[in-house]
Amino acid sequence: MTGAAPEAGQGPRGRRPGPTETRAAILDAARALFGDKGYDGASVRAVARAAGVDPALVHHFYGGKQGLFVAAMRFPVDPAEVLARFATADRAAFPETMARTFLEFWDDPDRRAPILALFRSAMTNERAAAMMREFVTAALLERVAEGQGVPLERVQAAAAQLVGMAVLRYVLRVEPMASLGRDELVALLAPALRAHFG
Amino acid sequence: MTGAAPEAGQGPRGRRPGPTETRAAILDAARALFGDKGYDGASVRAVARAAGVDPALVHHFYGGKQGLFVAAMRFPVDPAEVLARFATADRAAFPETMARTFLEFWDDPDRRAPILALFRSAMTNERAAAMMREFVTAALLERVAEGQGVPLERVQAAAAQLVGMAVLRYVLRVEPMASLGRDELVALLAPALRAHFG
Repeated sequence: MTGAAPEAGQGPRGRRPGPTETRAAILDAARALFGDKGYDGASVRAVARAAGVDPALVHHFYGGKQGLFVAAMRFPVDPAEVLARFATADRAAFPETMARTFLEFWDDPDRRAPILALFRSAMTNERAAAMMREFVTAALLERVAEGQGVPLERVQAAAAQLVGMAVLRYVLRVEPMASLGRDELVALLAPALRAHFG
Repeated sequence: MTGAAPEAGQGPRGRRPGPTETRAAILDAARALFGDKGYDGASVRAVARAAGVDPALVHHFYGGKQGLFVAAMRFPVDPAEVLARFATADRAAFPETMARTFLEFWDDPDRRAPILALFRSAMTNERAAAMMREFVTAALLERVAEGQGVPLERVQAAAAQLVGMAVLRYVLRVEPMASLGRDELVALLAPALRAHFG
């Protein structure tokens, strides 16, 4: 769940570790292809070909396209981690879980700066916006829509409530929203999220 | 209601027109002072002093600090216009009016580009963020809170729903939200806004 890469020098594991150079070649190829083709347009197969490795090795290292994207782009939030939290949430308390999870990521000092940098880049750069749109839609929003049994635009409206809160709280820093405690904010936002998930 | 400045050469009006040079001096001084001190820190009196005119003339031309700010910064939305629409809205339909007004401004092709430019600048520049925060809070959010009789953080939460929608629809352009018609979007967002205004 921590997303940390295995440390060098930990000795042999059950699975054969790839050399550092192979991982680096895969991540370089992935960055180039995601940057060039976007998230939807790049494939594990094309990345493997560009890196000169077997696609099975990319799957072995990164679990698939989503994990490869998170690792290559140093994406500060792993959708697999978010979905794991959502999966264990009480269905009736899903709005509270969604708000709390979002706030915990933004309030984490190790993640705040990279999330903010990524968000600013998507706000001002069309290529970064397209990559964020494609990745977040495929890896998170469509899966929440499926899991909650609601149309995609309702999940987008709920995401918009949280994204707008982040703009006001963390970027524009309007008071009192910037200083509210996490529990107060969850209580403030959950009724609106509930209106979307109904 | 259009916010256009009076055209030169329209001939005499009931009120004595100030010379173009005086208006230009006032607006230059206002831009410098708002940029330097922020919206809260600048005053009509200080702008008048810097421009070498009587404060009464600034009030006469621009109606006060808010109108001066809108004119000097070419702010693409006049809060006086927004509040006038809100004032005539049926109280029960306030969430729908708020969503529709916000969408009409963003969907207006003459305003979209300047609103977007201003928003991007506030997202990436601390001084622009402070100016936007102070102006929008004083000129709009605090007045809506007063008018609706709700705490300021609830108005901020409603504003966050609309701002986040703008990020997803106009900046990241996620589908289907980017292509929904205005009526569909009002229907999608109003229940969440209603949750905030209670």
